[in-house]
Amino acid sequence: MTTTWKLATRAEKMNPSVLREILKVTERPGIISLAGGLPSPKTFPIQAFADACADVLHNDGQAALQYAASEGYGPLRQAVADMLPWNVDPAQVLITTGSQQGLDLVAKVLLDPGSRVLVETPTYLGALQAFAPMEPVPESVASDDEGVIVDDLVAKARGTAGDAARFVYLLPNFQNPTGRTMTEARRQAVAEAAAKAGLPIVEDNPYGELWFDEAPPLPLAARNPDGVIYLGSFSKVLAPGLRLGFMVAPKAVYPKLLQAKQAVDLHTPIFTQRMVSAVMKDNFLALHVPTIRALYKRQRDAMVAALRREMKGLDVQFKVPVGGMFLWARMPEGIDTVKLLPRAVERNVAFVPGAPFYAGPGDSRTMRLSFVTANVDEIDTAIAALAATVREVLAEQRGEPALAPT
Amino acid sequence: MTTTWKLATRAEKMNPSVLREILKVTERPGIISLAGGLPSPKTFPIQAFADACADVLHNDGQAALQYAASEGYGPLRQAVADMLPWNVDPAQVLITTGSQQGLDLVAKVLLDPGSRVLVETPTYLGALQAFAPMEPVPESVASDDEGVIVDDLVAKARGTAGDAARFVYLLPNFQNPTGRTMTEARRQAVAEAAAKAGLPIVEDNPYGELWFDEAPPLPLAARNPDGVIYLGSFSKVLAPGLRLGFMVAPKAVYPKLLQAKQAVDLHTPIFTQRMVSAVMKDNFLALHVPTIRALYKRQRDAMVAALRREMKGLDVQFKVPVGGMFLWARMPEGIDTVKLLPRAVERNVAFVPGAPFYAGPGDSRTMRLSFVTANVDEIDTAIAALAATVREVLAEQRGEPALAPT
Repeated sequence: MTTTWKLATRAEKMNPSVLREILKVTERPGIISLAGGLPSPKTFPIQAFADACADVLHNDGQAALQYAASEGYGPLRQAVADMLPWNVDPAQVLITTGSQQGLDLVAKVLLDPGSRVLVETPTYLGALQAFAPMEPVPESVASDDEGVIVDDLVAKARGTAGDAARFVYLLPNFQNPTGRTMTEARRQAVAEAAAKAGLPIVEDNPYGELWFDEAPPLPLAARNPDGVIYLGSFSKVLAPGLRLGFMVAPKAVYPKLLQAKQAVDLHTPIFTQRMVSAVMKDNFLALHVPTIRALYKRQRDAMVAALRREMKGLDVQFKVPVGGMFLWARMPEGIDTVKLLPRAVERNVAFVPGAPFYAGPGDSRTMRLSFVTANVDEIDTAIAALAATVREVLAEQRGEPALAPT
Repeated sequence: MTTTWKLATRAEKMNPSVLREILKVTERPGIISLAGGLPSPKTFPIQAFADACADVLHNDGQAALQYAASEGYGPLRQAVADMLPWNVDPAQVLITTGSQQGLDLVAKVLLDPGSRVLVETPTYLGALQAFAPMEPVPESVASDDEGVIVDDLVAKARGTAGDAARFVYLLPNFQNPTGRTMTEARRQAVAEAAAKAGLPIVEDNPYGELWFDEAPPLPLAARNPDGVIYLGSFSKVLAPGLRLGFMVAPKAVYPKLLQAKQAVDLHTPIFTQRMVSAVMKDNFLALHVPTIRALYKRQRDAMVAALRREMKGLDVQFKVPVGGMFLWARMPEGIDTVKLLPRAVERNVAFVPGAPFYAGPGDSRTMRLSFVTANVDEIDTAIAALAATVREVLAEQRGEPALAPT
C-alpha cells in the first residue's frame, strides 16, 4: 500500500501563483520584464548593510543570533512607531517576516470559512492568495480612480443575513496593481463610513514612501487607530530580500495576532531586525529614500512618454501614477492581455495581465506595467516592442498579413 | 459605533504560549533558567557569520537583497540534500523560515477542521500550537521510552468511521520534551506499519546532529521518502536567530506546500540563506558541530550528576538523554510541577512543567529541564535549588514547618 496524502479542502483550492509562474517564463535572458514588482537593485544600500552586519555581530553577536521575542526587536518597534505619521504606541507594533506575513496572520485571526472579505476592484493578488487558505469569500467593492466607492462599501459591509464582512482590505497609496491613490476626501469618507458601519479595515501600505511630488494624505489608520490594522514594509525603502515588515494593530486584536505569529515562525529573524535597526540610525532613510523616489520618477516619466509615443493612434488608456512602482494600462478593444503575453514574450517583453487581480470577473484588456526594475533605455525598448505586438495582433484581427517582429 | 473585531473561531481557541509566558517570568535577573530551549550562545560562530556577511554583500549584494524564489536559494537546497543521509533530490527541498514554519505549512496543506492528527505522548508543544489554527483533533499515541507504540499507532491511524488520521507527527531524535530517541528497531517497525496503513508521517528533526556518543539511526524519511515529510533546522547547529529551516517533501505534496509558502511570506529571507550557504562552505559544520556536542555532553553529565546528588532519597525518575537539549524528569508523588514552578522561581530556578506537552491529559509530576543554556556551575546551583524546593513542598505536605530558602 502506498501512502495516501489526503489534502485539506483548502489545499485542493490552492492554485500556483499566476505571477510566480509568469516570472519564471520571463527570467529568460534577453527579456525585458515589466512584470515583476522587483525594486531596482541599484537602490539597495549595500555598504550600509555591510557596515550594519559588522556592527551588529561585533557588538551584539550572541543576542543577534539567539531566539528572540515574537513581538520583534524593541528598538525596531520603537523606530517604526517613530516614523509613522500618527501617535503609535510601540507596544502595538508587531514585526513580521515581510508584510505578506501580516496578511496571513490577519486572515488566520479574522476569517472563518465562508467569511465575507471586501477588496478593491482590482486588488493585490498576493492578498487574495494569503487569505485563500482560510477559505473566505472575497467580494469586490466597486472602485474608481480614487479607490473604493463609499456607498458600495457600506452596502457590502452589512451583508444580507447578518453576515457582516469581517474586514475591507485597502491599499490607499499607489495601489498594486492600478497605481491609483485615494484622495484626502475619499480617505476621510471611507474611514468615517467604515467606523460608522463597524467595519474593520486592513490597510496595506508597502509603497507609501515612494511618492514623486508630494506625500500622500494621512493613512486610514491615523484617522481611526482602533478600527484599522496597518501593514508596512521595509522592502521598498531598503531591500525586499530581508523579508522585513510590520503591522500596527489595535489592542482588541494584537494578542491574537501575536499568538498566530508565534505559531508560524516563533519570531522574525532577529539578525535582520537588528541589521535594519542599525541601518536606520542617524536618520538614514531621510537621506536614502529621496534617491529612490528620484530614480523611480525618472523611470515613470520614461514609461509615460514611451506609451504616449509608441501607442499613438491606439485606444490605450492609462492614468499617470504619482508614486509607487506600477502603471495600469487598458489595451484597445479586441486585445486579451492573457493571450497577448506569449506574443509579447516573443518580442522579448513581459508584463502581467490584469485579470488575475480581480476577485470577481476581470477586465481582460488590462495589464500591469512595472516601471522600477528596468532602466530608461530598457523601458523605451520594451514599450516599443509591446506596441508592435499590439499592432500586430490588431492587424491580424483585421485580416491583414502578419508582420515579422521588428 | 465602534469597530467590531469579530474573531475567527480558530482565534477564539488560541491561547498564549505557555512556554513563552513562562520565559517572560524567568527573564528576571538572577534566575537560572532550565526552562527555555535556547542553544548556548557560546556555540554561535560569530566570526564565521561576519565573514559570510561581508562575502555575500561584496560578491552578490544586489541578488542577496532582492526578492528571490519561494523554493529557496539553489546552492543551499543542494547543500541540504548533500548533508542528509539518504538520496535527496534538491528539487524536493523547500527552505523555510525556521522549521516551525514547516509545521504551519504542513497543517495548512493537510489538515481540515476536525481532521485527526496523531502525536506522541507527550509531544512538542510548538507543533500543537502550529497545527491548532487549522482546527484538527490531535490524538495521543501511547508511547514508551523508544517512542510511539506501533500497535496503538496502527489502531489510531485507521480511525473508526473512515476518518483516517491525516498524518502522525514524530520527533525521533532526542525528542522535545522527553529527550528520548527511537531505536533502530522501532523506526523500522513504525516506518513499515505506517507505509502499510497508508499513514503519512511528518518527521521533525531539529536536534539530530546533537548526539553525544553515536549518531542516531537513519531517519524515517530515509526508509520511505514518498511517505514522509521531513523537517530540519539550522537553529541548533548554527544559530536560531536566523530562523532558517527546511523541509524535504514527496512529489505528491511539494507543489501545494510551495504554494502555501508563497502565500505566507513569498520566500525565506534570501540574505540569511546566502549567509548560511557561505558559512557552510569548506565543510564548516563537520568542524563546528562536534564542539557543540562536546559542550552539551559536559552539561548533560553535570545535570545528571546533580540530579543524582541533590535528589537522593526522593522518588525522582529520569532517563539519561543520549543527545539533544532536554532531560525529562518525573517528580515524587504529591508534586504538581505547575504549582512547583512559582516556588522554584522564588529560589531563582525555572523549568517547564510537563503537562502542557500532552495532547490529552498530562502527567502533572513531569517537568522538562534544558541542559544547554546554563553552564555547569549554574546547573549545579539550579538543581540544588530545585531539590530544596521539592523537599520543602513535600515537608509542608507532611505538615512540617516551612524552611527558609537556603
